[in-house]
Amino acid sequence: MSHNRINVGIVGGTGYTGIELLRLLALHPFVRLSVITSRAEAGRPVSNLFPSLRGHLDLVFTAPNDDLLHQCDLVFFATPNGVAMQSVVSLLENNVRVIDLAADFRLKDQMIWEQWYQQAHVCPDVLDRAVYGLPEVNRVLIKNAQLVANPGCYPTAVQLGLLPLMEKGLIHDEIIADCKSGVSGAGRKASIGTALSEVSESITAYCVDGHRHLPEIKQGLAAMTGAEVGLTFVPHLMPMIRGIHATMYVKTSAPAAIGVDFQALYDNRYKDEPFVDVLPKGSHPDTRNVKGSNECRIAIHQPQQGNTLVILAVIDNLVKGAAGQAVQNLNIMFGFDETTGLNHIALVP
Amino acid sequence: MSHNRINVGIVGGTGYTGIELLRLLALHPFVRLSVITSRAEAGRPVSNLFPSLRGHLDLVFTAPNDDLLHQCDLVFFATPNGVAMQSVVSLLENNVRVIDLAADFRLKDQMIWEQWYQQAHVCPDVLDRAVYGLPEVNRVLIKNAQLVANPGCYPTAVQLGLLPLMEKGLIHDEIIADCKSGVSGAGRKASIGTALSEVSESITAYCVDGHRHLPEIKQGLAAMTGAEVGLTFVPHLMPMIRGIHATMYVKTSAPAAIGVDFQALYDNRYKDEPFVDVLPKGSHPDTRNVKGSNECRIAIHQPQQGNTLVILAVIDNLVKGAAGQAVQNLNIMFGFDETTGLNHIALVP
Amino acid sequence: MSHNRINVGIVGGTGYTGIELLRLLALHPFVRLSVITSRAEAGRPVSNLFPSLRGHLDLVFTAPNDDLLHQCDLVFFATPNGVAMQSVVSLLENNVRVIDLAADFRLKDQMIWEQWYQQAHVCPDVLDRAVYGLPEVNRVLIKNAQLVANPGCYPTAVQLGLLPLMEKGLIHDEIIADCKSGVSGAGRKASIGTALSEVSESITAYCVDGHRHLPEIKQGLAAMTGAEVGLTFVPHLMPMIRGIHATMYVKTSAPAAIGVDFQALYDNRYKDEPFVDVLPKGSHPDTRNVKGSNECRIAIHQPQQGNTLVILAVIDNLVKGAAGQAVQNLNIMFGFDETTGLNHIALVP
Amino acid sequence: MSHNRINVGIVGGTGYTGIELLRLLALHPFVRLSVITSRAEAGRPVSNLFPSLRGHLDLVFTAPNDDLLHQCDLVFFATPNGVAMQSVVSLLENNVRVIDLAADFRLKDQMIWEQWYQQAHVCPDVLDRAVYGLPEVNRVLIKNAQLVANPGCYPTAVQLGLLPLMEKGLIHDEIIADCKSGVSGAGRKASIGTALSEVSESITAYCVDGHRHLPEIKQGLAAMTGAEVGLTFVPHLMPMIRGIHATMYVKTSAPAAIGVDFQALYDNRYKDEPFVDVLPKGSHPDTRNVKGSNECRIAIHQPQQGNTLVILAVIDNLVKGAAGQAVQNLNIMFGFDETTGLNHIALVP
Repeated sequence: MSHNRINVGIVGGTGYTGIELLRLLALHPFVRLSVITSRAEAGRPVSNLFPSLRGHLDLVFTAPNDDLLHQCDLVFFATPNGVAMQSVVSLLENNVRVIDLAADFRLKDQMIWEQWYQQAHVCPDVLDRAVYGLPEVNRVLIKNAQLVANPGCYPTAVQLGLLPLMEKGLIHDEIIADCKSGVSGAGRKASIGTALSEVSESITAYCVDGHRHLPEIKQGLAAMTGAEVGLTFVPHLMPMIRGIHATMYVKTSAPAAIGVDFQALYDNRYKDEPFVDVLPKGSHPDTRNVKGSNECRIAIHQPQQGNTLVILAVIDNLVKGAAGQAVQNLNIMFGFDETTGLNHIALVP
Repeated sequence: MSHNRINVGIVGGTGYTGIELLRLLALHPFVRLSVITSRAEAGRPVSNLFPSLRGHLDLVFTAPNDDLLHQCDLVFFATPNGVAMQSVVSLLENNVRVIDLAADFRLKDQMIWEQWYQQAHVCPDVLDRAVYGLPEVNRVLIKNAQLVANPGCYPTAVQLGLLPLMEKGLIHDEIIADCKSGVSGAGRKASIGTALSEVSESITAYCVDGHRHLPEIKQGLAAMTGAEVGLTFVPHLMPMIRGIHATMYVKTSAPAAIGVDFQALYDNRYKDEPFVDVLPKGSHPDTRNVKGSNECRIAIHQPQQGNTLVILAVIDNLVKGAAGQAVQNLNIMFGFDETTGLNHIALVP
Repeated sequence: MSHNRINVGIVGGTGYTGIELLRLLALHPFVRLSVITSRAEAGRPVSNLFPSLRGHLDLVFTAPNDDLLHQCDLVFFATPNGVAMQSVVSLLENNVRVIDLAADFRLKDQMIWEQWYQQAHVCPDVLDRAVYGLPEVNRVLIKNAQLVANPGCYPTAVQLGLLPLMEKGLIHDEIIADCKSGVSGAGRKASIGTALSEVSESITAYCVDGHRHLPEIKQGLAAMTGAEVGLTFVPHLMPMIRGIHATMYVKTSAPAAIGVDFQALYDNRYKDEPFVDVLPKGSHPDTRNVKGSNECRIAIHQPQQGNTLVILAVIDNLVKGAAGQAVQNLNIMFGFDETTGLNHIALVP
Repeated sequence: MSHNRINVGIVGGTGYTGIELLRLLALHPFVRLSVITSRAEAGRPVSNLFPSLRGHLDLVFTAPNDDLLHQCDLVFFATPNGVAMQSVVSLLENNVRVIDLAADFRLKDQMIWEQWYQQAHVCPDVLDRAVYGLPEVNRVLIKNAQLVANPGCYPTAVQLGLLPLMEKGLIHDEIIADCKSGVSGAGRKASIGTALSEVSESITAYCVDGHRHLPEIKQGLAAMTGAEVGLTFVPHLMPMIRGIHATMYVKTSAPAAIGVDFQALYDNRYKDEPFVDVLPKGSHPDTRNVKGSNECRIAIHQPQQGNTLVILAVIDNLVKGAAGQAVQNLNIMFGFDETTGLNHIALVP
């Protein structure tokens, strides 16, 4: 199928989500990147900030400019939390569709959002119109959405790992999600805490008492089951660049779970999903085999045939956990084949 | 206090546990390393195999030699599983005390041992005489032991992390232990699976359906509570050399747990332990701050004041998880100050 | 331009060069991978050995099979040194073109080859017919070659870094090439020497007294200048997976070098090369910005305006230093656009 | 030998040089750490900033305080360049001896210092009184020095690698020093350039056109030979925390070099040095075998018996390249055995 290219703009784009989005869009056959805005980098060639793009992208950062953005078919926000909500209304009024890679529109409940993000929301009315951009759950809504809230990295891995069980109501009691992430998840910024000499050769948990992705995951799981879910979510920082490994522990003691073939349940649920790969029984997915690709790989275990299931889910936090999923959403929104521009094979070794 | 040096021998010692034991013993003021045996390396200077020891240790590997070992006060086995049990009886009969850093004497139940280690045990009679060498639990028994079974790395972190709760009977229901280890835990051997190009920049769970440390941990926890304990234990491989981070999830719904100040419980339990450091409330221990030291650091969290406790425990798998704990046991057995030769400060950064 | 797909076979392919070749060929629009042979892995799906290829490549390793290979238009050898020379004559006689990614046909002088590779060459007559596959030097010869000897990784970086100077005769005196490589250059094999715990957090030189790439580089440089060249080549092992950084030191005291604008010389020499990128004056190329891409990036410095030039050249050892260059040669041999299937943007971060 | 403890103060000490100095001094038997000053961290326990020191050091940062410093026998400056020179005169006048770990007193020529450090020197008169603290060269002067300028990390490795040749006048022509350093050499500070996601899995040269250690090395080499020396020095950033590997290339064509046994020359020169270890012929030192130790390891090669010597020298940049050498200087200055508090064995693996 052949398509005309759509006009795409990016606001921000100077972080790791931004460079990954640029890597994917620069080779997308149906996208014309027409504008990228950054107050800090205005006038600088993108390939000067990100030398990996030399020869692949001939674009210059411009100062924020509504006129240019209004001419786009789609605008991505790859900005810190709290930026997109300043501009989205104006874009929507001009019939520009929007995908926000930050968290401004991920939570439906304004109060919870303001509590976790520690600021007032400037356009709470828009929260209802935003579609949570997890294609495996919301594909139909995404297709017609004007505004897509691209999921967080941890929430993507955890929700995909639990979706088949939640939909069938097979989990009761509390869920444990022990998650491990590469350092790129902390963003591209000057900080001692992400220096190689500080985080290399070390592991640590962080935000055990509460991480912003907790309410996002709880909201997603509740939508799958129709009821609130108990969740303990503990993120850990890993000495590597990319990758998330979510290890989830759930009890199968719900009556409905008796006799269920969990492997078959997962196989069936995801058999038509282009980017979710359920591994054969007994497998242990690793993050390197999805590095640079948009895949989520899942394995389900039932140790010693007990009543605790262990689900392992891995993604590349910058691809399926951010920019790749955003491009997947773009493809859905504009009727392109969902895998367009996303057929990368993981870079191994 | 001044002591005469004791004569110490090592069987094996060509792996990572071995080199770490040599690093510690070479500077131990009350130890004379008199013999180290290795069939494969007989005749080779130890410092030729391990150049870090050049100038610090003037010892040559000798072929296995019972006469030399019988002259020792203490012999360490730093050998693969199944080796120590071939020789221990003869040493004990000659009044040589033994610390086995492998798993031959860690389990009390011969059948369980044979099931998990897939071989017949050649001296099951000795299992009862072996003392499990976790000083924080068994200090008095260790003092007089002829044979000490040095704990595994994961079991050390998990048991120390849970000990205060288990002793008080504050846990009911199943325990989750999600553990992360550096690659040195896999030992020093030629294998594709531990090559830098395979394990760097990646994380993976392994042995989800059953790891040999599971029965060891369950035995230890049961001894603390006097009853069998439900445990799901999932180890993960981390892209780094040293360090274990154990993240434990337990329910506090036992009636006895109502109103307990968990921080105070941990502080009190460990206040006199030289190598267990309970961090202040809200802390997140990291492995780098114990790298090269014999410390175990622990923090206890109760996210959102819910009924799930999250306990974080970190050790250096080669020190408190192996060689350092073995030297701590040696100190106890021979009446030396328990910290002798173990006052290393972690190498940071 | 549209092309029919050519039939391509691979012999070997179970190492890192192999998986990289598979990553590139699986998405090459004009290639049909019809056979991959491996004695050790016969019967095993390729995507089982290399899980990153799940869903991208539906091929099974077959036992060595001349009939299948003879039906190919092109066969790659991704085998250890000394294997390709056993089979090449028969393939050439059957009009199958060959690209050898190992060293069997890289040296023109049989005696030198046998001295460095410590074995007899079984088809020395073929050495003359082999074209050294460095497109920037031999593009025209490659186009019509039946047998291409794909260059080594270090030789690619060093030769591209020195080519403009050598061609103009601007170097006299001895050349220093101080080269640094990621561990994947050592291949995919069980070995203590490449274990993460051995090579992570460390650097070391190796083979200072002589590395097999020395005669290959010297032969290449001599061909550029028409005279033998003095070269000291020291490789170093780096604690990372991919990437080569070659730092070259040359004297500019040749009379011809007076007044030469070296930056302009490099810019001009490479301005039409699709995979060589000369960076602006003052730049320091890094390996991460070519990770996963087929680019060679070069910068040229003249510290303190002295008479020593410092040339910095970086490649991904598995792409431009191996599989990517092999695909580039395939494109040239079959008249495809040279960049077909090679437009990957480096994976950053 | 038994000594009274000397009173030691530290100014600064919040960087990597600082924490390493604290690690070494906390266990030094003849040192009492009585004061550590930091404007930014005043009032904060040192072990709160550096948790590895919990239980080992009971000291609190105080605001800068001349009175406290004047009561010390020795004060270390572990501060940014340009800080020590503000306070040294006053300390010297109060008979406090000083070791500056920064660069303020390393260069004898004020103009060169001001050119490379881009600031005016506030006490140029003191430059002559400062002793360059490389014990292998200046041991006698250090013993009686009031002010010691502790060498830089690269200069330590390069000078120790070349010393035996320079002293004998065996080098003519230009010297190449290709140096590789771990990221901790860049210091502990918030910066994108040292983030794990930026520097891990990558190598790059930097400051090829001129690095501040160039004049320091040239001054040191000139002092060894009595004549100026041509030097090209290129530093590279390595994806690891600690370690410097210096690879030096020199010509042996000086008449005096004919027939010299270079291995014997090095062996003899360093045979009484406690911290320089000349490896056997054919060796390749690696940085991991000196990690955490004060050793410099050196190997000398003459590839293909040509007229280029390759000298390999490795150190831990934070120990022999900074804090360890400073403690070695302290030991010399106060008449302690030179190895006191410095007998650490490298942490391997």
